[in-house]
Amino acid sequence: MYDRAVQGDTIAPEARAGRPSAPEFDVLLAEYRSVRAFSEELCRPLAIEDYVVQSMDDVSPTKWHLGHVSWFFETFLLLPELGGYEPFHPRFSFVFNSYYNAVGERHPRPQRGVLARPTVAEVLAYRRHVDRHMTRLLANVSAAAERVASVVEIGLHHEQQHQELMVTDFKHVFGVNPLHPAYRPASAGGNGAPPGPLEWVPCAGGLRWFGHAGPGFAYDNEGPRHRRFLPPYRLADRLVTNGEYVNFMADGGYRRPELWLSDGWDAVNREGWEAPLYWSRDGSDWQQATLSGLRPLAPSEPVVHVSYFEADAYARWAGVRLPTEFEWEAAAMDATPAAAVANFVEEKAFHPRPCPPSAGLRQLYGDAWEWTASDYAPFPGYRPAPGALGEYNGKFMCNQYVLRGGSCATPRAHVRATYRNFFPPGKRWQFSGIRLADEG
Amino acid sequence: MYDRAVQGDTIAPEARAGRPSAPEFDVLLAEYRSVRAFSEELCRPLAIEDYVVQSMDDVSPTKWHLGHVSWFFETFLLLPELGGYEPFHPRFSFVFNSYYNAVGERHPRPQRGVLARPTVAEVLAYRRHVDRHMTRLLANVSAAAERVASVVEIGLHHEQQHQELMVTDFKHVFGVNPLHPAYRPASAGGNGAPPGPLEWVPCAGGLRWFGHAGPGFAYDNEGPRHRRFLPPYRLADRLVTNGEYVNFMADGGYRRPELWLSDGWDAVNREGWEAPLYWSRDGSDWQQATLSGLRPLAPSEPVVHVSYFEADAYARWAGVRLPTEFEWEAAAMDATPAAAVANFVEEKAFHPRPCPPSAGLRQLYGDAWEWTASDYAPFPGYRPAPGALGEYNGKFMCNQYVLRGGSCATPRAHVRATYRNFFPPGKRWQFSGIRLADEG
Amino acid sequence: MYDRAVQGDTIAPEARAGRPSAPEFDVLLAEYRSVRAFSEELCRPLAIEDYVVQSMDDVSPTKWHLGHVSWFFETFLLLPELGGYEPFHPRFSFVFNSYYNAVGERHPRPQRGVLARPTVAEVLAYRRHVDRHMTRLLANVSAAAERVASVVEIGLHHEQQHQELMVTDFKHVFGVNPLHPAYRPASAGGNGAPPGPLEWVPCAGGLRWFGHAGPGFAYDNEGPRHRRFLPPYRLADRLVTNGEYVNFMADGGYRRPELWLSDGWDAVNREGWEAPLYWSRDGSDWQQATLSGLRPLAPSEPVVHVSYFEADAYARWAGVRLPTEFEWEAAAMDATPAAAVANFVEEKAFHPRPCPPSAGLRQLYGDAWEWTASDYAPFPGYRPAPGALGEYNGKFMCNQYVLRGGSCATPRAHVRATYRNFFPPGKRWQFSGIRLADEG
Amino acid sequence: MYDRAVQGDTIAPEARAGRPSAPEFDVLLAEYRSVRAFSEELCRPLAIEDYVVQSMDDVSPTKWHLGHVSWFFETFLLLPELGGYEPFHPRFSFVFNSYYNAVGERHPRPQRGVLARPTVAEVLAYRRHVDRHMTRLLANVSAAAERVASVVEIGLHHEQQHQELMVTDFKHVFGVNPLHPAYRPASAGGNGAPPGPLEWVPCAGGLRWFGHAGPGFAYDNEGPRHRRFLPPYRLADRLVTNGEYVNFMADGGYRRPELWLSDGWDAVNREGWEAPLYWSRDGSDWQQATLSGLRPLAPSEPVVHVSYFEADAYARWAGVRLPTEFEWEAAAMDATPAAAVANFVEEKAFHPRPCPPSAGLRQLYGDAWEWTASDYAPFPGYRPAPGALGEYNGKFMCNQYVLRGGSCATPRAHVRATYRNFFPPGKRWQFSGIRLADEG
Repeated sequence: MYDRAVQGDTIAPEARAGRPSAPEFDVLLAEYRSVRAFSEELCRPLAIEDYVVQSMDDVSPTKWHLGHVSWFFETFLLLPELGGYEPFHPRFSFVFNSYYNAVGERHPRPQRGVLARPTVAEVLAYRRHVDRHMTRLLANVSAAAERVASVVEIGLHHEQQHQELMVTDFKHVFGVNPLHPAYRPASAGGNGAPPGPLEWVPCAGGLRWFGHAGPGFAYDNEGPRHRRFLPPYRLADRLVTNGEYVNFMADGGYRRPELWLSDGWDAVNREGWEAPLYWSRDGSDWQQATLSGLRPLAPSEPVVHVSYFEADAYARWAGVRLPTEFEWEAAAMDATPAAAVANFVEEKAFHPRPCPPSAGLRQLYGDAWEWTASDYAPFPGYRPAPGALGEYNGKFMCNQYVLRGGSCATPRAHVRATYRNFFPPGKRWQFSGIRLADEG
Repeated sequence: MYDRAVQGDTIAPEARAGRPSAPEFDVLLAEYRSVRAFSEELCRPLAIEDYVVQSMDDVSPTKWHLGHVSWFFETFLLLPELGGYEPFHPRFSFVFNSYYNAVGERHPRPQRGVLARPTVAEVLAYRRHVDRHMTRLLANVSAAAERVASVVEIGLHHEQQHQELMVTDFKHVFGVNPLHPAYRPASAGGNGAPPGPLEWVPCAGGLRWFGHAGPGFAYDNEGPRHRRFLPPYRLADRLVTNGEYVNFMADGGYRRPELWLSDGWDAVNREGWEAPLYWSRDGSDWQQATLSGLRPLAPSEPVVHVSYFEADAYARWAGVRLPTEFEWEAAAMDATPAAAVANFVEEKAFHPRPCPPSAGLRQLYGDAWEWTASDYAPFPGYRPAPGALGEYNGKFMCNQYVLRGGSCATPRAHVRATYRNFFPPGKRWQFSGIRLADEG
Repeated sequence: MYDRAVQGDTIAPEARAGRPSAPEFDVLLAEYRSVRAFSEELCRPLAIEDYVVQSMDDVSPTKWHLGHVSWFFETFLLLPELGGYEPFHPRFSFVFNSYYNAVGERHPRPQRGVLARPTVAEVLAYRRHVDRHMTRLLANVSAAAERVASVVEIGLHHEQQHQELMVTDFKHVFGVNPLHPAYRPASAGGNGAPPGPLEWVPCAGGLRWFGHAGPGFAYDNEGPRHRRFLPPYRLADRLVTNGEYVNFMADGGYRRPELWLSDGWDAVNREGWEAPLYWSRDGSDWQQATLSGLRPLAPSEPVVHVSYFEADAYARWAGVRLPTEFEWEAAAMDATPAAAVANFVEEKAFHPRPCPPSAGLRQLYGDAWEWTASDYAPFPGYRPAPGALGEYNGKFMCNQYVLRGGSCATPRAHVRATYRNFFPPGKRWQFSGIRLADEG
Repeated sequence: MYDRAVQGDTIAPEARAGRPSAPEFDVLLAEYRSVRAFSEELCRPLAIEDYVVQSMDDVSPTKWHLGHVSWFFETFLLLPELGGYEPFHPRFSFVFNSYYNAVGERHPRPQRGVLARPTVAEVLAYRRHVDRHMTRLLANVSAAAERVASVVEIGLHHEQQHQELMVTDFKHVFGVNPLHPAYRPASAGGNGAPPGPLEWVPCAGGLRWFGHAGPGFAYDNEGPRHRRFLPPYRLADRLVTNGEYVNFMADGGYRRPELWLSDGWDAVNREGWEAPLYWSRDGSDWQQATLSGLRPLAPSEPVVHVSYFEADAYARWAGVRLPTEFEWEAAAMDATPAAAVANFVEEKAFHPRPCPPSAGLRQLYGDAWEWTASDYAPFPGYRPAPGALGEYNGKFMCNQYVLRGGSCATPRAHVRATYRNFFPPGKRWQFSGIRLADEG
């Protein structure tokens, strides 16, 4: 969710039924504490210096992430709902607003890395301040209880999105550093056996319903629920591996314009791409910068850090194509629960794992976001919600592509079969990978 | 067709049935002569200086257009099919190649305006040379007759695309000139009565077939024919007018971020947009640069020279939305033949006309290309044709939006209900306008 | 005179003594006709298309040059001095103003090449109009005769500067064209015998006077006359040749950072320089685009189309340095008249010639402008003249270097020993070459 | 010394006479300790976060400065002179090289702010490591003693240059921060009485010697000593004040092109300058970001943070000019010792002070570097020293202007009458101010 989660956020909730009761607020407070604690847990391996750097325009400094998610609660809950609340600092609204035009002016995004201040300690104090008042708010909800619960829920999903972004942003900060620092040691056993050859799973198509049907939380872009007709199709049973991708490269993948979209070929030449992001040559071999430092490339792991352009070129080279987001969603809806066993951020692998050798659709969730051939567009009948939080619901629905399924940096509770992530087609710093599709 | 027709071209034909006979070649030769002559007829009002200028990167000099469409015949027909054919000039392949990587190196597109040579006279001599040999080829076709007929047909549609581009490119060259030259005098009666208020035409939706079904020529991107499901919807009976668009502007349309896609808002600010292209202030009124020179803005004419971003913002301001390309196509398929009475380039108005006051869907064709909410993507099962002409069939299917229906600069024989034009969402120099849609 | 002559012009005259009499105005009118005619004579080999193109920002279209020099007479003489004069066209002042802020707004310089209109015929008609009224003015001068004579003189020197620029701008327009057009056939005998080895001519230095001492015209930047102290020094007797420059290249000249100024090394890398402008490889040999088309590199000709950075790097490689403008001027003042035999534009060689084999300082004038080590700065006591023409006298005295002596594109009557030409150190499209110097 | 001290450094020493003896090495070691300690003392008020940020391309992170000056000793002394020395970290040479092409590849300058690592603690450990070995080296010098002493001396002057840059870089980092942090509290009494009206001090001129004559250290660009002739001239007795500069602004200084060099006028428009750097409006008044935070503008203080373009425009507005570097140096040589009482960095004011009310030339040293009208060019007979340290002696002598006299951020021991600082004419982040001059 490049623009939504990175540049700022979205988000109008789907309707919630009824008003939450006091016990529900206890649950919500527990969730609040858990999510907030996890953000800080993720930062534990960092040095102060690591919180400050913006290694490219898409990356935000970690301290900015930590402040921004707190500003979200302050702006959309504490200020409107908690009488007499005083902002922690009068200029933080300027510093930590991501892109909400309605909320006022803001510090320019590409300049976040020039902000020496506030210090990390000050940002953490800001978090304590917000947490203290959020606790007070949730303990005393009366009027507008429904709105409070709904916005807290959004705020927590919002913070989970930023947890994923913090991980991918650490990775970039460390990945461009000539000293090759590691975020944490590699977990044992990563480099498993090669998965078997890629198999095709037939899918029936037909006239089906799509979009979120509840219960539970969903972003508004997952609806309205609506019907579409799909011709029969096939999906690859697993993600494309590094080893397979190396074959594409060895066959001139980055030097053959006929394999590329025109904009993709421009990107290859302009950016000098000759491999996925974070790959570098080590003599005749390839190595990969990971969150555990530089490692030899593991052929059996899924390829990640490829752009839509690279995913599309790989599929064309392989004689097939990428799935649409609807093909993916229909298959995920039909999949057995076993398909949902997945490498999410809670595994603390921080890296995709080789596909396990069982049969059927695997790796639908976790490991790597899967680029789809679908542009990020509104579902039929979609309308932005009224008011500030809904102001920008559709504003990123242009020149971006949908990714599905979550990655090794995604909190498990954050994704579902209808979840639509989206990024511009040239972006590579997320854990984005490739699943192939073909006509049925 | 920004990239296809401008940067170069495409194009694999849909399959043709059988081999053309000699009389058919007579017909083809007559068509060839007619299309080729029309290109030069369009240039008649120009001074030599007008053929040379590239007023922005998207524009090509007229002499380049005239040479490029001839190079197309030379490269894809005369060289492979006419034994002993000698190219007119050894460097013209470098100068007039648009984007065919497979055909060799080429002069960079944004530098076309620095080419003093070849002169216009030399380009016209080149055209004569190609015409002479094309006549010879078509008079003596034997082997591979089917391929020849098919490529001639593409070459003629290709030249028609460039006829439209020549008109829009003249318009830009004249439009940026501080002396405000006119291409030709205004045709009489342009500024008609205001059309009545916009009416909504209900459309049924359902599971329907889309894409070209023959007979006759179509580009490969109009297929394969396939089914889609549409919810019921409504279409505006005519295009949005200048007068209506002025209301949007007066209501702060260009100053309210909540009306815009995020990329659109960036464009507004980066480019300083405050009105459609070619509009300028004349005291408190607006005037418009047209191919007949500067004129006061006519409120009853359709608004043109708006980007996708502006069309989308206007629709959001109006509380509705743009149609998808499938909604447009279904309505066009169901429309009465009367709907096809249209202001195409053969009218020589070179400007859109007010909507006639009859009832029902009007202005589906001609006047202005209609931005749709559909990104330019392959139809299910689409595969590029093999070989040089098909090399790039899908390469522009990224970050562009589909427009439908043709404009006052389009040759009548060039469009049809399934025709898919496409441009990036920020482009404004085509005759692009707005038709509104809504849920049924 | 990059900015002065190209971006617009200057220029306040040194004081003239007294008022010219009628016979003098006859002489002036004859000069006027001669200079004006020569501008058009230079254009005779051009096609209409060649007048239109701006092949890079520094180049102006020939039709712009022809119009601009006429606008100069219109603006600074006809409008203020000729009662009832009507401008030829109300917008030409906008189109043909180069950089005079005081004269009003203007068309942006890098956009001169997008002006299809006015046509060449219209510009020539403009010239006729201005000439007719200038003739009238000069036949009836009464009041302010001195000012008129003085401004005519400036206007003619101004037009001569643009004559040189037209030649170098044709050369660029033709030089970047993939068809390699020639402006005119090569004159016979160009490729003469190699000059002998470079010899050093000792110069005494001491406390001397510099700057123009009259009589005759000089630009105000050639004064005030003032004293400077020079240590003894030596000058090379002739310009550096292509053959000598090839030795520098063969010795890694363009790959050794220690030979370059820091800004120069940046330019080498940013621009990808590996030879002078207009050189290209022809197998293992070099060829050179000239105004007579592509020719094999002639080793005995002076090297031209080098930047200050290349001249400076060559000198460092050779273990010596470039002369200051004062060292050049002192030597030129002391030189015998024979030193002034030179290849100026009247020779119609349009290319530098090998140095003749006589002894002593040669090639001081003509062939190639000589980069000096002196930044373009005001002489002590220099003050801009009051009024519009003098408004900008000093405004280009920053980040430019002085060149001395004139080139094969300079009108003979335009230069003298005190003449100071100037360009930014990275420019190469003038006929700029190298004379070496060293301590005495 | 923009490029020399910032992008990297210089520097070949003038010749030293003879070999230093052991006691001299004691003195040198004491100096070494003192200079090294002062760098860290300057950093004491900083938070860790403040060491990391690069707020624009010209600024380096403080931790980079601290590492780079240590790398200088490691590279030019410990590695060549101390047998068996092991570099602290194998990649630090890549990270901390500024611009020495001869020493190998390096991290790109504008990317210094993306380096999270090494941490500040690691950089300080690096300093300890270098200091330990430098102590060892200086205690045991035998062979090549002269070279060691000479390079230590350069290394210390180099570190002093970076001390000044650290101060101006902190100022920028804090100055762009929306929270307006202060480096330290303001020292008492800053805002003194207004100095009297500016007085002119006559200077005789004549044929004089310039350049460093010893004894003591000087950079090689301060020689060779040579003669020049100066016409008589006058210097202002003090720096231009903020109050005087406000008058220039109020008189349309930033809106009148006739006051500006052409490149300066471009900078005004491109950068949107309407006041010196760090000034901002506070209603109808001006305030100034200082190292003690935001403060109301003090009219009696010298104006600082102006570019050469602004200094030149101010002088033109005032009807006079800037001094040449030789006029400044001659006056400084003739000045009484009282003129050298100055506000240098040891005062810890970190801000310029109002001129004291005594008579004669004042503020020659300290407070603000004084822009001169002299481009940074080699003195006659200057030749770069051989070898690595001298590799780049002249490479910055292009497109920069000389400043003289030191500022409130300059270590007192670092400047002298012949010291030549230099920056490109558009730079404003140094403490650069204005002294006026005129003909005598």
